[in-house]
Amino acid sequence: MSQTRCDAFLGGRLRIEQPARGYRSGMDAVLLAAAVPARPGQSVLELGCGAGVASLCLGARVAGLVQTGVELQDSYAALARRNAAANGIALEVLTADLSAPPPALRARIYDHVCANPPYFQRDRGSAAPDPVREAAQGEATPLAAWIDAAARRLTPGGWLTLIQRAERLPDLLTALDRRLGSAEILPLSPRAGRTAKLVLLRARKGGRGAFRLHAPLVLHAGERHERDGDSYTPALTAVLRQGAALPWPA
Amino acid sequence: MSQTRCDAFLGGRLRIEQPARGYRSGMDAVLLAAAVPARPGQSVLELGCGAGVASLCLGARVAGLVQTGVELQDSYAALARRNAAANGIALEVLTADLSAPPPALRARIYDHVCANPPYFQRDRGSAAPDPVREAAQGEATPLAAWIDAAARRLTPGGWLTLIQRAERLPDLLTALDRRLGSAEILPLSPRAGRTAKLVLLRARKGGRGAFRLHAPLVLHAGERHERDGDSYTPALTAVLRQGAALPWPA
Repeated sequence: MSQTRCDAFLGGRLRIEQPARGYRSGMDAVLLAAAVPARPGQSVLELGCGAGVASLCLGARVAGLVQTGVELQDSYAALARRNAAANGIALEVLTADLSAPPPALRARIYDHVCANPPYFQRDRGSAAPDPVREAAQGEATPLAAWIDAAARRLTPGGWLTLIQRAERLPDLLTALDRRLGSAEILPLSPRAGRTAKLVLLRARKGGRGAFRLHAPLVLHAGERHERDGDSYTPALTAVLRQGAALPWPA
Repeated sequence: MSQTRCDAFLGGRLRIEQPARGYRSGMDAVLLAAAVPARPGQSVLELGCGAGVASLCLGARVAGLVQTGVELQDSYAALARRNAAANGIALEVLTADLSAPPPALRARIYDHVCANPPYFQRDRGSAAPDPVREAAQGEATPLAAWIDAAARRLTPGGWLTLIQRAERLPDLLTALDRRLGSAEILPLSPRAGRTAKLVLLRARKGGRGAFRLHAPLVLHAGERHERDGDSYTPALTAVLRQGAALPWPA
């Protein structure tokens, strides 16, 4: 990861250095950050923070958070630290394996945990050619280990917020396995009436509410791609360009 | 189950005797039948057929099916046989526990299996006062046993179609556990933008397609209940009143 490039997020409020080649966070990380129901002053842990996009978007939206990111790959962790400093947002980044956290992390609990676990299952496809990209995109750590790590680090009543490809929903809900309760799925559909591409999961440590499957949040207005440039719905434009919270259904 | 009453289905095409008190099938069974992608001449097994509503709705829509129903409770099985005869639809009904099928059933495989498993989990609420109703509504047989029974009775490439409360989706997908592939969920929402109340599952024996979460099928037109009488969408009215197939997304 010798070359980096600088990407703008939240309408230019954040400028974030990411690898020029290899895995780069994009809209998914912004949606994840917008979905975390954190209030000023609360603590938030991001598992697998990469270059820090989700944590920094969250820190830009909610004031006075105490934020930690855990990242397995040293090169991404170093970028996340640099990005936090450059954007003036407090984010402690630990280089660690989330399934074998260091004592400093094991001693702490958080009001919120968020994660954007890698989307590709190593046992179901070929590995990416670049080993750094492969580690960021491939699933060395199974989803159950992400859920387990989140459940261990959450305070009672604390929230997990997670984004994942819709086709992983069976694995995701199986991994959840009542470790956390009051789970809710918000499908994200590219357009009205289309099959969901992504899902957001919220669940609560000790939650006792029934599972809820919400109506999809539609990302793009219109029936199809009709013109160049953005076609995001007004709610999505507010999330992506103005750093608004994601409108989670009641 | 001494008293019965007669309910009309599919706009009066079917008249079905059900217990006057106790569990009676309704819209869910009709939706299940409408979602089974059976073609004329194929074989269909319904697990837990009750008084036969779903199987008879399916038999009324698709000509020349070879249909079997399995029902644990003798009183419901007897009603199903009577209802099949009264409506002139061929349906063999076996009184049996689906998790311990008799040799006659174990020797057969089907192109389709469908089921509307009981909605209430016995370990999560109180039992129904009537033991017959309790057996029909309560979950003596866990969802995993329904999936297992379906997987065993399906021909390679055969389809499972199942309807269940949306809040059971985590249990349902956990039970699926890759026993069947190419799984798809069609959420059923009472109105546009609302949280799903029910889900339809389709999955295929030996299917290798990725899981798909479809856009919800909306049952009622309008934002809220505005007048007496039906407010079903045109597609739903066709399913419920004219016995049409359910419009499953491509």
